[in-house]
Amino acid sequence: MDHTTLPCRFVLDLPNWAPDELQQLPQFLPDLKARMAAVLRFARLNTENQTGGPFAAGVFERDSGRLMSIGVNRVVPLNCSSAHAEVMALSLAQQRLGVYDLGGPGLPAHQLVVNWSPCAMCFGAVLWSGIRSLVIAGADAAMMAITSFDEGPMPDKWREELAKRGIELIEGVLRQEALADFRTFAASNPVVYNGRQG
Amino acid sequence: MDHTTLPCRFVLDLPNWAPDELQQLPQFLPDLKARMAAVLRFARLNTENQTGGPFAAGVFERDSGRLMSIGVNRVVPLNCSSAHAEVMALSLAQQRLGVYDLGGPGLPAHQLVVNWSPCAMCFGAVLWSGIRSLVIAGADAAMMAITSFDEGPMPDKWREELAKRGIELIEGVLRQEALADFRTFAASNPVVYNGRQG
Repeated sequence: MDHTTLPCRFVLDLPNWAPDELQQLPQFLPDLKARMAAVLRFARLNTENQTGGPFAAGVFERDSGRLMSIGVNRVVPLNCSSAHAEVMALSLAQQRLGVYDLGGPGLPAHQLVVNWSPCAMCFGAVLWSGIRSLVIAGADAAMMAITSFDEGPMPDKWREELAKRGIELIEGVLRQEALADFRTFAASNPVVYNGRQG
Repeated sequence: MDHTTLPCRFVLDLPNWAPDELQQLPQFLPDLKARMAAVLRFARLNTENQTGGPFAAGVFERDSGRLMSIGVNRVVPLNCSSAHAEVMALSLAQQRLGVYDLGGPGLPAHQLVVNWSPCAMCFGAVLWSGIRSLVIAGADAAMMAITSFDEGPMPDKWREELAKRGIELIEGVLRQEALADFRTFAASNPVVYNGRQG
């Protein structure tokens, strides 16, 4: 049969404004709040430019603070429900290093910094990525209440699941700033995509 | 600072053998076992050609059986820990249709057929994809026991979570055939990548 339309590849990329913004960032961000502030700026720009949902994530070398990648949510513009900020950032960092395991032999420990707790999908993506440290602005229902984004069903005891796999969890970094940005997003009459609601 | 190496895009593609194999498939596969057999063939070819893990997934129109996409696991060759078969198939189908929601208005119901139950990450990817039907060869510990792949922590009552979101689940299609292929994979002295094991 004629399957000339059957796709064999797809491209996921950051918005047009991202390369210039990346150039503005220092190569090293030793301070945890500075790392989260950079992530929050990308999330905010993604909302302002209407280039995706209000989420961003960055991969850093945990100890030096070297910036490896920043990703933003690209679900709606790229027509890809898996293009969450965490998947973008982790995949970009893995491509840069040429590894599928950011915790592999010979590599420094890597950290993922996100402006809220990962959804059900991204929680799994975090486990498989090889990062050793996860930094989030918050993990309770406040974000969902403001934005109406659905995080999906998390495993029971997801914090313990991270610990079991040697992934440290740091919560509450710039929480109020993150929530203020979610309020701005919610006030912008945005597209909020959630999967099947039954 | 000089961030000329900071990546802004990545490409995920099927192996070189895939386009020819896709051409061999009928445009419509009305029978559920025929859909799973096509998926199993792609998983087997992925093992034989050493182009990724022993997993494949296909997106079909649920009622007509029209083939929309097939994906295979590409984690190791593409250096991308998120490039599981389900993410590949769902993203390729979404790109083909130009939608981020395979269950969106005006679309026929779509079905994902996979040669085992989704891992923790892909379970979330299934929820966000918009598919209405998930068909798997099995969901118990047999695959993990044979291959030593780790599925990660699933949410409690994940079957009920699918049902709550209007996603039907059909289990046990060509189970023995799937397990036989996992045994062949395990006997090939393969790379088995699991994330942080603590």
